Amino acid sequence: MAIDASIHAKAVELTKLSIQMTTAAGSGHPSTAASLSHLITCLMYQHMRYEPANPKHPGSDRLVLSEGHAVPIVYAACADLGVAIGKGKLHPMTRDDAMTLREVGSVVDGHPNPLEGFPFFDSATGSLGQGLSTAAGLAQAAQLDGIAKRIFCIIGDGESREGQVAEALDYIMDAKLTAVLPIFNCNVYAQSDKASPQQQADTMVAKLKAFGYDVRDINGHDPNAILAALAEHAARADAGPGQPIAIVARTTKGWGAASMQGNGHHGTPIKPNEVDHIFAELDATAAHVGAAWTDGDLAIAPITAKVPDAPAVTPAPSFTEALIKFGKADALAKGKFSTRRAYGVAVRAAGHANPRIVALDADVRGSTYADDFAKDADLAARFFDCRIAEQNMVSVAAGFSAGGKIPFISTFAKFLTRAYDQIEMSINSGANLKLIGSHAGVSLGADGPSQMALPDVAWFRSFTSVKLPDGRPAMYVLQPSDAFATYALVQAMAAHDGPCYMRTLRPDTELLYDDKTEFTLGGHEVIAEGNDLLIVASGYMVHEANRALDGLEEAGISATLVDLYSLPFDEEALLDLAQENNGMVLTVEDNYGAGVGGAVASALAEDGGSFTLKQMTVERVPKSGKTPDDLLKLLRLSADDIVRTARELMELASP
Amino acid sequence: MAIDASIHAKAVELTKLSIQMTTAAGSGHPSTAASLSHLITCLMYQHMRYEPANPKHPGSDRLVLSEGHAVPIVYAACADLGVAIGKGKLHPMTRDDAMTLREVGSVVDGHPNPLEGFPFFDSATGSLGQGLSTAAGLAQAAQLDGIAKRIFCIIGDGESREGQVAEALDYIMDAKLTAVLPIFNCNVYAQSDKASPQQQADTMVAKLKAFGYDVRDINGHDPNAILAALAEHAARADAGPGQPIAIVARTTKGWGAASMQGNGHHGTPIKPNEVDHIFAELDATAAHVGAAWTDGDLAIAPITAKVPDAPAVTPAPSFTEALIKFGKADALAKGKFSTRRAYGVAVRAAGHANPRIVALDADVRGSTYADDFAKDADLAARFFDCRIAEQNMVSVAAGFSAGGKIPFISTFAKFLTRAYDQIEMSINSGANLKLIGSHAGVSLGADGPSQMALPDVAWFRSFTSVKLPDGRPAMYVLQPSDAFATYALVQAMAAHDGPCYMRTLRPDTELLYDDKTEFTLGGHEVIAEGNDLLIVASGYMVHEANRALDGLEEAGISATLVDLYSLPFDEEALLDLAQENNGMVLTVEDNYGAGVGGAVASALAEDGGSFTLKQMTVERVPKSGKTPDDLLKLLRLSADDIVRTARELMELASP
Repeated sequence: MAIDASIHAKAVELTKLSIQMTTAAGSGHPSTAASLSHLITCLMYQHMRYEPANPKHPGSDRLVLSEGHAVPIVYAACADLGVAIGKGKLHPMTRDDAMTLREVGSVVDGHPNPLEGFPFFDSATGSLGQGLSTAAGLAQAAQLDGIAKRIFCIIGDGESREGQVAEALDYIMDAKLTAVLPIFNCNVYAQSDKASPQQQADTMVAKLKAFGYDVRDINGHDPNAILAALAEHAARADAGPGQPIAIVARTTKGWGAASMQGNGHHGTPIKPNEVDHIFAELDATAAHVGAAWTDGDLAIAPITAKVPDAPAVTPAPSFTEALIKFGKADALAKGKFSTRRAYGVAVRAAGHANPRIVALDADVRGSTYADDFAKDADLAARFFDCRIAEQNMVSVAAGFSAGGKIPFISTFAKFLTRAYDQIEMSINSGANLKLIGSHAGVSLGADGPSQMALPDVAWFRSFTSVKLPDGRPAMYVLQPSDAFATYALVQAMAAHDGPCYMRTLRPDTELLYDDKTEFTLGGHEVIAEGNDLLIVASGYMVHEANRALDGLEEAGISATLVDLYSLPFDEEALLDLAQENNGMVLTVEDNYGAGVGGAVASALAEDGGSFTLKQMTVERVPKSGKTPDDLLKLLRLSADDIVRTARELMELASP
Repeated sequence: MAIDASIHAKAVELTKLSIQMTTAAGSGHPSTAASLSHLITCLMYQHMRYEPANPKHPGSDRLVLSEGHAVPIVYAACADLGVAIGKGKLHPMTRDDAMTLREVGSVVDGHPNPLEGFPFFDSATGSLGQGLSTAAGLAQAAQLDGIAKRIFCIIGDGESREGQVAEALDYIMDAKLTAVLPIFNCNVYAQSDKASPQQQADTMVAKLKAFGYDVRDINGHDPNAILAALAEHAARADAGPGQPIAIVARTTKGWGAASMQGNGHHGTPIKPNEVDHIFAELDATAAHVGAAWTDGDLAIAPITAKVPDAPAVTPAPSFTEALIKFGKADALAKGKFSTRRAYGVAVRAAGHANPRIVALDADVRGSTYADDFAKDADLAARFFDCRIAEQNMVSVAAGFSAGGKIPFISTFAKFLTRAYDQIEMSINSGANLKLIGSHAGVSLGADGPSQMALPDVAWFRSFTSVKLPDGRPAMYVLQPSDAFATYALVQAMAAHDGPCYMRTLRPDTELLYDDKTEFTLGGHEVIAEGNDLLIVASGYMVHEANRALDGLEEAGISATLVDLYSLPFDEEALLDLAQENNGMVLTVEDNYGAGVGGAVASALAEDGGSFTLKQMTVERVPKSGKTPDDLLKLLRLSADDIVRTARELMELASP
C-alpha cells in the first residue's frame, strides 16, 4: 500500500498549494481543485508518459482539462514537478511561479491558456464542455501519424450538461477512439447548487453505457481504483480501435477539508485567516487515510511513442492544372463556377500538396464540396465527417491543430454560428483553423433565413482588429467572388499559420480572374477604374455591382469597382482609390451591417479626409425566394438598386 | 380498421402534395416529408386539439417541427385543412397557396417561418436541434398559466446529433414536463449518408431510457401504433408532472415510393417527368396497405383548455424605491454599485410589476444576480435554472415568448456566444428575448479570456441595422455604465416588444445618475461638455474616460464625454456633438473592434462631413489580471492611455 500512501500525501500537498495560490490570487476554485487531487496525482506523477522539461513533446500523453476552473491543482503539480513554462524560453515552473496565479504579468493564467506561456496544455479551456472534442482531435491526429499516445480528458459533472459533451461522446464512439479516456469528475456540486440529477454519477453511468462506453465507476479518491482503471484503459488503447472506456469518478468537492465542502464553495478562495484551519482539516484527513510520502513510490512514465519526421510539402498546382489533374478539364467551359465547388477542388489540391491538411465537415459535404476531398482515395483517411454537430467539429479541429495538422472545416456559414464560442476558444488556443462557411449571404435563396449567414461578417471582422498573444493576427475574413480567387485563397490559407474564415456561395458565379491573378491575405482587386464613385463589394455582390456598371455609365457615373475579398485590407490603398473618386464611396454586401461597409467606414473615418460613404446591406430579415435575383430585389440590393442608390448618393453630394 | 385506412389514404395524399410543391419550387425535401406522413396525419387530423381558423389560439396544442426541412408535409396538411395563414389578415390556406412554396412573395417559406405569415408555427426552425427546447418553453409557459395543452415536437434522427437535443432532454426530465412529447423520426438517413449508429433507433431507445424517459418504440407508419402512443402520452400529460414519454418512430425516408428511398434523396425534389412514376408507386403502396378514405373517420379534436385573462401590469417603482422595498435602502451608500447587481434589483422589480416576466439563468445566478429574482418567494415559480446549457436556455426562452411570456435570460456574456445561432433563430421567430450578458469586456479581470465577452458587441450590433418582417427593430444593444441606468433600461426592455441585449459588468462602478435621469432604447447621456474632442464610451469605459477628463484638461483638451449606452443611437445628435468639437472624435471600448467605435465610424462616414475618428479597442487577446486596472494598462485602455491617445489625435490634427 506504499504507493497508495504516497498518492494520498501528494494529493494533500497539491490541494494545499492550490489553496495557497487561489487565496493569494483572491479568486479561483480551490474546492474543485481538491476534488481532482488524487486523479491528477495518479495521472501526472505516475501514469502519463511525458517529460516535464519538454511539455510539448509530440510523443507525450496529453491532458485536456475541460473543466478549466480546476486548473490550480494542475499548476500545483507542475510547480512541484518543474514542468517547463514561459513565453519564448521555457523554465521549470516553481512554487513562486504558482503564487503568481492570475497576475497580469504571469504565465499562470486564471484558466488553461497555452499561448500565454503554458505549453503543457494544448488548448484554452474555461468555457465549458469543449475539452472532450479537443481530446478526440488530438487522438485522431496522433492516429494519422501512428503515434501511440493517450489523451486524458477531465470533465466536470455540471459541465456535462453542455450538449457538446454528448456530441463528443458520439464522435469518439463512431471513431472507436480508445486512445481517449473521458474522466467525469462527479463531485456532486455545480456553481449555484448541486448539479442536476441528470448529471449525477448514477445517471452518468447509465447514459455512458447507453452511448456504448465500457464504464468504470470508481471512487475518485481511491488511488488503487484510479490506477486500476487507468491500467485497463492503457491496455484498451494499446489494443487499437474498439470500444472506448470512460471513467465516472465519484469525488468530493473540497476533498479533505469539511469546511470547504457542500454548497456555496464554488469559485470561492479560502480567506487568509481560514487557511490554517483548512490545512489542519487536511492534515487530519491525511492521517486518517494513511498518507505518507516515500521517495520513489511514484515516477513519471517515460515517453515510448515514436514520432515520424515532418512530411514534405509540395507546391499546389494552379487552378487550371488542378482541374485537369482531377479530370475536370472542361469544368470552366461555361464561364461560371460556384465558389463552393472551387473550394472542393482547392482543398483537394491542398490536401495532395500538404500531408498535414485534414478536412472536416458536418454532414453537408455534398453541399460544401468537401466531398471532393472525402472521395479522393489518397485523401479519404484524412477526411472526418463530424455529422450534424458543429460545436464538436470545431473543437475536434482545434485538437487536430494542436496535434500538428491543418484542419479545413466546412459547413453552411449559418451553422458555424452555433460553434462561435468554440471558434473563439480555438483562436485563444492558437489553433490553426481554416473555417469554410458555405451558402453565405442571401444568394442561397430558396431555403430561407434559417440557412443564411448574415451577421457572420461582423463577428469574424471583430477579430481582425486583434492580435494573438504571440503577435499573429487573430483572423482573416476572406470572401472570394470567383473560382480562381477561391482556389488561390485556399492555398494562401493553407500556407498561413493562423485562423482564417472563408465564405463560399451556393450559386454559380461568373469567372472574373485567371491563374495569374495574385490573391493574398489582406489583398483586394480593382475590377473597373473610374473617377466619380468607388464601389466596394465582396463575394456575390461583386457580380451584382459589376452588372450595375453599365447602368451607372448611362447615368453619367464613372465608377471604380473594388473586389474587397479580404478583411483586414490595405487601408491606404483603398483610401487612395476613394480619393481618386472625389471621396465618394458605396459599399454593397448581402449580409447584415457592421461587415465590409463597416470596415470601410472605419478606415474612412479614421483617416480624417473628406469622404462620403453609403452602405448597402440587408436591412430586413430575409425570407425564401426562388432565385438570388428575387431576394436581391426584395432586399433592394439588385444591380438596379445599386444604380439608384449611387445616383441618390451623387445627387446628394452635388445638389 | 376504418380509421387506419383513412390515415393511410391521407398520408399518401399529403405525400403527393409535398412532392408537387417541392417539384414546383425546384427545391425542398420530399423524402423527409414522406417519412412523416402518418405522424402528421395522426397529429393534425385527429389527435391535436386546435382550430384551423385560429392557429394561434393560446389554448391549442402546439406542433414544433424541429426538423424544419420536413415542412412540406405540414404545409400539405394545412392546405388540405384550410389552416389560416397570411400577413395581417389571415385566410384559409389552399392548395394554390401550397404551390407557391419558396416564392419570394409567398408566406409559404422554405422552412417554418411564423413571422412571414404562418402562425400555425411558434418558431422558425431549420437550423437543427433547437425545437425540443422551444417545446419545453411552450409547455412551461402553459404550466404557469394553468393551460392544459400538449406540445408535440418532431426531431430528425440525424438532427439528434446536435448536443442541444441532449440538453433539452435533460431539461424536460428535470422539470417532469409530461406535456411535451418528443417524437424522434428515425428514418435512417441524414444528408450525406445514413445517420451514425449513435442516432439510429436502437441506440436512441437506449439513450432515451438512460435519460429517464418512458420510451414508445413504434413503427412510424402504423396508424394504430401512433394513435396508441399518442393516447398514452395524453393520459400521462393529463396526470400532471411525472416521467415524460418519448416516441422513437421507425420510419422510411421516402415512404411509399421506392424510387425516393435510400441514400442520395435528401433535399432533392422529384424531377417533373418522374412525378407520375412516383405517384404510381405511391398508389401501389396505398393499395397494398389498404388505404381508403372515409369521411368522418378523422376529426380534429376540439380545444378544451381554459385560457386565463391577461394579467394586470403595474408601473415599476424607481430604483431607490425598489431598493427600499427589497430591504436594501443603504445599498448605494458607498457610491458604487455594480451593474450586474443593479440587474438583480431591476429584474426583481420588473417581475413584480409584470406577471408575464420570467427569468432564466444557466447555473450562474449568484454571479449574474438573477438570484434576486429566484430567491423572491413571489417570483420563484417564474425562475428557471437551465443549468450549464446555454443553447437550450435560449430556445426555451423563445418557447416562453411564444407562450406569451417575457423571458429575461442571464449568463456570462461570453457563454451566451454558444447560443448565437439559437438567438438568431429566436429573433427570426419574433421572440421577445431580453438577453443579459454579465461580466462583459475585460473588467472581469482575474478569470481571463475564457470568461470575457469581446466580439459580442460586433455581433449584436450587426442586427441593429435590421428590421423584422413585421417592421420591429431586430435588436437593441444596451451597455449601461451605472446602476441607475441599468435599472431604468431593464424596465425599458420589459416595456419594449422585441429583442434586446444588455451587457452588465462584474466590478462595482461609480454612480453617475439618479432616479430622474431618463434612459431610453436609442438614447445616450452627455456627461461632460467641451469643445475640442468628443469622447464616446459605454459601460465600464465611461468611468475610465471620466477619469481621463482631468488629465485632458491639464493637456489643454476640453472634452465632451458621451455615455453611448444604446445601439442604435440618435446619429444626428451625436454628429452635432462631434461638430461642436471640431469633428474630432475618440471612441473607447474594452472589447474587440466593430463595436461602438464601428457604429460611430459608420455614422461619421455616412454623414460626409469633416471628421477625424480614433477608435480605442482591445487589440490583443486578453489574459488574466487581478484587477480591471491591470488589464486596462496591459491593453493600453487606461485613463492615462486615453489621455495619451487623445493628445496624439489632437496633435495629428493640428500639427
